[in-house]
Amino acid sequence: MTIEERLQRLEDVVAITQLVASYGPLVDAGEAERVAELWTEDGIYDVDEYYMGSRAEVDAMVRSDAHQGLIGQGCSHFLGPAHVTVDGDRAVAVCESVLLVRHGDRVFPARIGANHFELARTTTGWQTTRRTTRGLDGGTDARDLLSRTGRI
Amino acid sequence: MTIEERLQRLEDVVAITQLVASYGPLVDAGEAERVAELWTEDGIYDVDEYYMGSRAEVDAMVRSDAHQGLIGQGCSHFLGPAHVTVDGDRAVAVCESVLLVRHGDRVFPARIGANHFELARTTTGWQTTRRTTRGLDGGTDARDLLSRTGRI
Amino acid sequence: MTIEERLQRLEDVVAITQLVASYGPLVDAGEAERVAELWTEDGIYDVDEYYMGSRAEVDAMVRSDAHQGLIGQGCSHFLGPAHVTVDGDRAVAVCESVLLVRHGDRVFPARIGANHFELARTTTGWQTTRRTTRGLDGGTDARDLLSRTGRI
Repeated sequence: MTIEERLQRLEDVVAITQLVASYGPLVDAGEAERVAELWTEDGIYDVDEYYMGSRAEVDAMVRSDAHQGLIGQGCSHFLGPAHVTVDGDRAVAVCESVLLVRHGDRVFPARIGANHFELARTTTGWQTTRRTTRGLDGGTDARDLLSRTGRI
Repeated sequence: MTIEERLQRLEDVVAITQLVASYGPLVDAGEAERVAELWTEDGIYDVDEYYMGSRAEVDAMVRSDAHQGLIGQGCSHFLGPAHVTVDGDRAVAVCESVLLVRHGDRVFPARIGANHFELARTTTGWQTTRRTTRGLDGGTDARDLLSRTGRI
Repeated sequence: MTIEERLQRLEDVVAITQLVASYGPLVDAGEAERVAELWTEDGIYDVDEYYMGSRAEVDAMVRSDAHQGLIGQGCSHFLGPAHVTVDGDRAVAVCESVLLVRHGDRVFPARIGANHFELARTTTGWQTTRRTTRGLDGGTDARDLLSRTGRI
């Protein structure tokens, strides 16, 4: 690879780890628009109990009573460091997550999850085309997502 | 941007993510001096219940009975991957954190927090000029910090 | 340093943070071979209660009833962002970790730990020659590992 290609590869991996690292802070801040902008216009966010089929639906999730209730209690959508695989203008990132929620003056881990991001290089940088999140509940769905680490 | 500028940008982001990644291990090891050296001489560490106005006061916090007591019980100041924004010789990094503490043979999440680092490029590398940490308790302080992700 | 050397340094740090970031997802997926390939053939994984002296023994740990039982309950081996120090063809990475386990529909932090990776540059990229993990139980073993952050 040329210097230019090696630099581009590093910039891609760093940009994507940074995108993933921004999700938790932005969603716990309630920054609906900026969370939604992590996806393409028709990007998908598919969570166990919640399917969002567009940036607008991600925005609506952040503004929903359910999410605002969590924020009002005190919560952390804590995502681990992402493992990133880039292939040209497409990429995959995988990480685990834990949702921590306050009840009174105590904090509980409410949920652990597997997160699989499919991303595309757009004119405004990397964006998520599909994020799939499944609870690490002992079933095969979450484990299948995790086993796709390193695979486009 | 030139190759040199792109490389410098990557080095800055990586150096700052590495600085943030070293805080937890060093503070849980009780390495008072090395924790303090993550700040400038007059750097500020402003936590909910604790205001430190210099490197010396950060050092004293690590040596304090309160912190040594936590270490002696078994604890992890677990910081998530940092989102970093660089502008010349200044930078901002944001991440969430969870403090995990052992009681007997059980582990409890004692606190979840929002962390906002302001950093400066010094002759010895990037250092923290101000770190602000607020509990994710449902109030606006922590959420305001998180909403500054990506903003200098 | 030349452009080439600076680029190489960044590639090394990123490759190693990515290796560490892949451990949790792969081990929770039960991907025994791919977990084992994070080590050299005779690489060591030394955990409090479990000493593995080769890649084959790491592979066997992932396939063991104990680990498969954890996966079947639902678990997350959640590793924090690694702090990486490179010296030529050798490197050290340090991070903290928390093991989260489901019991019924609740999630508990079962263990917090200090992780110290020694790595070598091989013909197929960076691999772990020795990983030492100790519980953050208030004793000196885990704290000694953490104090080696930034030291080869």
